Amino acid sequence: MFKKILLAHDGSNGADGALEKAAGLCKLTGAELVVLTVYRHHSILEASISMVRGHGEESGNLDDAMRSAAREVGNHAKALAGMLGVPKVQAFIKGGPSARTIVAFARQNGCDLIVVGSRGVGASEGYMLGSVSHKVTSISEIPVLVV
Amino acid sequence: MFKKILLAHDGSNGADGALEKAAGLCKLTGAELVVLTVYRHHSILEASISMVRGHGEESGNLDDAMRSAAREVGNHAKALAGMLGVPKVQAFIKGGPSARTIVAFARQNGCDLIVVGSRGVGASEGYMLGSVSHKVTSISEIPVLVV
Repeated sequence: MFKKILLAHDGSNGADGALEKAAGLCKLTGAELVVLTVYRHHSILEASISMVRGHGEESGNLDDAMRSAAREVGNHAKALAGMLGVPKVQAFIKGGPSARTIVAFARQNGCDLIVVGSRGVGASEGYMLGSVSHKVTSISEIPVLVV
Repeated sequence: MFKKILLAHDGSNGADGALEKAAGLCKLTGAELVVLTVYRHHSILEASISMVRGHGEESGNLDDAMRSAAREVGNHAKALAGMLGVPKVQAFIKGGPSARTIVAFARQNGCDLIVVGSRGVGASEGYMLGSVSHKVTSISEIPVLVV
């Protein structure tokens, strides 16, 4: 019933729980697993401040550091999925706003289920400001499993 | 991986889509299906106005009508689940606030997954006012599949 499952992993414990469920569903359905870790680009505002202040080089380093941290998270998730017995798993990183990037990636890659942890790294923002899982369920056209 | 799946069905087309996914998961995992239809009690405010106006009998009839409509929705969902090949399915109705009633029922009945449509009957209220599916994912301690 599912052929390609997208797991959004942000490095939080909640995302590890979501990974376990996604892995279980992959084994049951024979679906392949796609792990996506989204990182934030250095914002345009921050970049323009940096230009005025002449800190362009540091901004570049910050972007590199975020990409590299995202890659580590993705590799961890991929290894965990392998240990859980998922036969086919790929990991990707992508820069952008979390929820929109997750939903767009799922659409572009023909995924038929998104699995996401209910409490991610930014959970302290709380429900009123809208968590990533809430935004994903709001804008996704395919089913979303919130773990 | 799932033993008892709660499907919240409000009679909307979205809930029928959720039912299909829930049925598929039941067949894959061997889980039993519990269908819950929540109806609104005549509110205390409305009841007190009715008492002043002497419309107490009509309020009783309204409650009866809502219970009866909920029972019909539950029976429709149960029949559909049977047609989809779910071996064990039960249907319940319950009065109260939708999301809290769904989550409490799942807890009390030992369910390990809640399946809910993303757009229910009250969808015209929009995201800002908070849909039932958003509230369920916010307060549930078990995984929620939003279809």
